[in-house]
Amino acid sequence: MSSPNYTSRRSRIQRQLKSLQVDAFLISGLSNVRYLTGFTGDSSWLLLTSNSVLLISDTRYETQLADECDGLPVVIRDASRNLIDAAADAVIDSGASRLGFEADQTSVSIFRTLEQRLSGRELTALNGVVERFREIKDKWELEQIRKAIHFAERGYYVVRSMLRRNQTEKEIRYLLEEAMRSFGASGPGFEPIIGVGPTAALPHAHAGDRPVRENSLLLMDWGAATETGYRSDLTRVLFTDKPTRQMYDVYRTVLEAQRLAIEAIRPGAKCSEVDAIARGYIQDAGYGKYFGHGLGHGFGLDIHESLRMSPLSTQVFEPGMVITVEPGIYLPGKFGVRIEDDILVTAEGNEVLTTVPRDFESARLGFLE
Amino acid sequence: MSSPNYTSRRSRIQRQLKSLQVDAFLISGLSNVRYLTGFTGDSSWLLLTSNSVLLISDTRYETQLADECDGLPVVIRDASRNLIDAAADAVIDSGASRLGFEADQTSVSIFRTLEQRLSGRELTALNGVVERFREIKDKWELEQIRKAIHFAERGYYVVRSMLRRNQTEKEIRYLLEEAMRSFGASGPGFEPIIGVGPTAALPHAHAGDRPVRENSLLLMDWGAATETGYRSDLTRVLFTDKPTRQMYDVYRTVLEAQRLAIEAIRPGAKCSEVDAIARGYIQDAGYGKYFGHGLGHGFGLDIHESLRMSPLSTQVFEPGMVITVEPGIYLPGKFGVRIEDDILVTAEGNEVLTTVPRDFESARLGFLE
Repeated sequence: MSSPNYTSRRSRIQRQLKSLQVDAFLISGLSNVRYLTGFTGDSSWLLLTSNSVLLISDTRYETQLADECDGLPVVIRDASRNLIDAAADAVIDSGASRLGFEADQTSVSIFRTLEQRLSGRELTALNGVVERFREIKDKWELEQIRKAIHFAERGYYVVRSMLRRNQTEKEIRYLLEEAMRSFGASGPGFEPIIGVGPTAALPHAHAGDRPVRENSLLLMDWGAATETGYRSDLTRVLFTDKPTRQMYDVYRTVLEAQRLAIEAIRPGAKCSEVDAIARGYIQDAGYGKYFGHGLGHGFGLDIHESLRMSPLSTQVFEPGMVITVEPGIYLPGKFGVRIEDDILVTAEGNEVLTTVPRDFESARLGFLE
Repeated sequence: MSSPNYTSRRSRIQRQLKSLQVDAFLISGLSNVRYLTGFTGDSSWLLLTSNSVLLISDTRYETQLADECDGLPVVIRDASRNLIDAAADAVIDSGASRLGFEADQTSVSIFRTLEQRLSGRELTALNGVVERFREIKDKWELEQIRKAIHFAERGYYVVRSMLRRNQTEKEIRYLLEEAMRSFGASGPGFEPIIGVGPTAALPHAHAGDRPVRENSLLLMDWGAATETGYRSDLTRVLFTDKPTRQMYDVYRTVLEAQRLAIEAIRPGAKCSEVDAIARGYIQDAGYGKYFGHGLGHGFGLDIHESLRMSPLSTQVFEPGMVITVEPGIYLPGKFGVRIEDDILVTAEGNEVLTTVPRDFESARLGFLE
């Protein structure tokens, strides 16, 4: 499959409009527009009716649109007209009297302006319509995600092989990004988190100036992005010196929690139940209050997509879904361990797409210069 | 000034609550929260009343918050409770009966959930309250912006000095990012646009595989970000071979349009009028339909802030504002020229903060290996 079938993706949405009780659907989420058109720019909205498609964009993108979305009907506005007005005019021209809009992707300000411009028409808040389709990856998307994982893993091996005691978190981050690009990534999938010792105890730390030598534990949370916009997301911990007994214990607990959770992922399993398996195991081990975030999230064009595993999730796994599984234990001021892999839900159960070893022995580096 | 006075920034907002006719103000915009607290994470909202401050965050950020916002009252939720519920509870605890929220930064979904949770209370949509303060940069912010410009300009000189005929747009992009980081930038201020010939005719192109040798014109639109989150934004065109007569004519037109616009920037000048000066000049030169975007935008913590110069702007310049001036002419399939500098509005007029030469002679490179 050399490229996705955007027409068929749009048709699936268009066929839903009747049951959603709208005549037209204004899609304003950046990644949703990209998913349905292949357009890689921003500030552009897509208007669908059951039998028409229109992209509302501006002069900055005129040529790019012709390249990326050949044949797609477009309205191009210039600086004398804003996007909301252009979209409202397109809705009026479509003849729709009931307009659906993306409530998760539309600010209250934009909604209120649209409401004024479209008075007399019914505006219906729709939630997660396109996002719901995006949860199930098609064959082409899975190829892209596998590529994004491949770039990330090759980058990791470069960093691992070149690790030095005097390297700082930031230096590792830049080396990692450069390596992933050299293999074909368009860049990192998100700002890589590189944390030595106490920094690793901050689940969302920015890489700083702490050198590897300061602590025997190094955490890396990173991923790559493909040219087509798909992402990967992994976390590994490396012991750059002799781990303490507590580090060993925490590592083993996180690893087992992850193993149990992955084992439970299959079509029909509830996201909240899989979360509970990992959370329960960590709680029983006495570390419950040191694991405060969700167990995992969907990813693809966005690094965080609508699928979530947490105590609050209401979703159920289906074949074709892709999700991270990333339990963690964070001991403030000391260190943190998180182990994160990317899982595809298959008809039979699941497939772990990531391949970097995660056993304790593989995490122990030998002598570090 | 070694760090901003967040307390005083918050006080300026708190003192406005009465005239905004609200008892409390829920600030959910990422950069607005950062501007008022110094917190560099995400998924965290700030609740202000006239005499209280509360940041609603989660366990991932517990330690980071203690580091970055020492002494700031916080509520930390874990994965069993979502941000909206935690925020709604905080509003209820505050005793506020009239709550302001950021209408530009709040999705319709979040608003409707808040409305349910806070029934009986009055929710007031506020627009651009914090953004309005952010338009005027304080002394510390100007230092950060000057740094971001310095990093960007040093990066540019590296790229210019190392330019080769076989380099591709992407290779230039990566070299530029690496160079800016080596000088102290945390990274690029946004995805750099590097375009050779026809690619330069796409105002928002992604750097691709086109080599420099394919056309005599190269466009670079780039900036740096500081560790503190402030950005710069410049565009330069380089002639890597003999420019055509048309390239010269277009360059000269854009440069003069920019000069006239910058000349007009002073306290009291209308943004739409300055836009009209550049736009009118380009129109008179016969290129009107090839300049479709706005003339410039404010920047700082975000690369695009609320201040805008376009035919639709209603804003008026004040001392302390910082804005890009970036007219462009794009000839589809051929080439594009944009020249962009960063301008500070001063009490007397303005100061051009960027220093990279932009005259035609400086844009002409000599022999390129």
